[in-house]
Amino acid sequence: MTTISIIGTGNMATAIGIRAARYGHTVEIIGRDRTKARAAVETIGDGAHVGTYGAEPNGDLVFLAVLHQGAVEAVRDHGDALAGKTLVDITNPFNDDGTGVVTTEGHSVTQQIAAAAPPSAHVLKAFNTTFRDVLAQATPLDVLFAGHDEGARAQFAAFARSLDLRPLDTGGLEMTYVLEWAAILLMGLARNGAGWDVSLGAQIR
Amino acid sequence: MTTISIIGTGNMATAIGIRAARYGHTVEIIGRDRTKARAAVETIGDGAHVGTYGAEPNGDLVFLAVLHQGAVEAVRDHGDALAGKTLVDITNPFNDDGTGVVTTEGHSVTQQIAAAAPPSAHVLKAFNTTFRDVLAQATPLDVLFAGHDEGARAQFAAFARSLDLRPLDTGGLEMTYVLEWAAILLMGLARNGAGWDVSLGAQIR
Repeated sequence: MTTISIIGTGNMATAIGIRAARYGHTVEIIGRDRTKARAAVETIGDGAHVGTYGAEPNGDLVFLAVLHQGAVEAVRDHGDALAGKTLVDITNPFNDDGTGVVTTEGHSVTQQIAAAAPPSAHVLKAFNTTFRDVLAQATPLDVLFAGHDEGARAQFAAFARSLDLRPLDTGGLEMTYVLEWAAILLMGLARNGAGWDVSLGAQIR
Repeated sequence: MTTISIIGTGNMATAIGIRAARYGHTVEIIGRDRTKARAAVETIGDGAHVGTYGAEPNGDLVFLAVLHQGAVEAVRDHGDALAGKTLVDITNPFNDDGTGVVTTEGHSVTQQIAAAAPPSAHVLKAFNTTFRDVLAQATPLDVLFAGHDEGARAQFAAFARSLDLRPLDTGGLEMTYVLEWAAILLMGLARNGAGWDVSLGAQIR
């Protein structure tokens, strides 16, 4: 059991918090708007608490659950307070109708975050191919992830397993752009018969 | 049971042929090199036969199982002989090290094929997120697909179900570019712990 920190107070922040708390982790919610952070904490329950925006998060694993447009700014707002942390970017840089991404190869949101974060921070992408309601349920589920640093990937994988998720490592930081496209694939499945309870995964013989 | 045609004589052509033949379909193999086509037919067995390159394929469902660089040329070589057919592009336009695609948004290989094919042909992409050895095995498996025309998508889905595959419709022709990225995701999974028996799929509650 560990403490995780979530920067963000929206639906995905709450969904990650609910799942983490249900499996015995302590959840810190960090938002620029403390009223919204308090509301998210109440929704999560189970010992969740409000952290201080801009200060060092309590958790070593810090989820960036803000809109993609604000992710780099949120990282800059915390500056050196994120030194040594493992940052998990969950954002999706969808275009207006969710049919493509506004990022370009080599410049995923995650890669932009990595460029803005302290050099000692490690940056991953995960949970962007899972709808919030699916994630909040306590069913087994695959979670695709990618990112910087073997140790940080192992740390995330262990955390995911503790939530009854099967972590599927897709590779290094350059693969985070591919994960951004994978979310468009998920949208396509949802819109064409699979419905909104679908999640991407893998079959391994 | 139906007849399917496969343009191409390589490993993926053989894998699709083996699976189709195993489930009772008749397989026509069409290759510029008749010797290679004959060899593929022998590998497939079960009534598979060699077709004539450039002539009208016997099947209504025609798989384009050539290298991505030659796919448009193969379609042009057949010209109006492909009128009214459903063409299934299985190619992957990988870059040299399989970490990205050489196509651009709006110009997937499938979209290039659609532009070169007779107007009455419908063009899909499928099987590009499944390794050949996995496909050739008769286990249940998810198959992601996308493409032009509701009717053609339904036709492909019915064929896939007849092979004990679960067809997962991801949308229209524009989604074929997303499927090309999905194959890079598959490569990332294979290289980072999942191994080469992995296949992309979906979890649906």
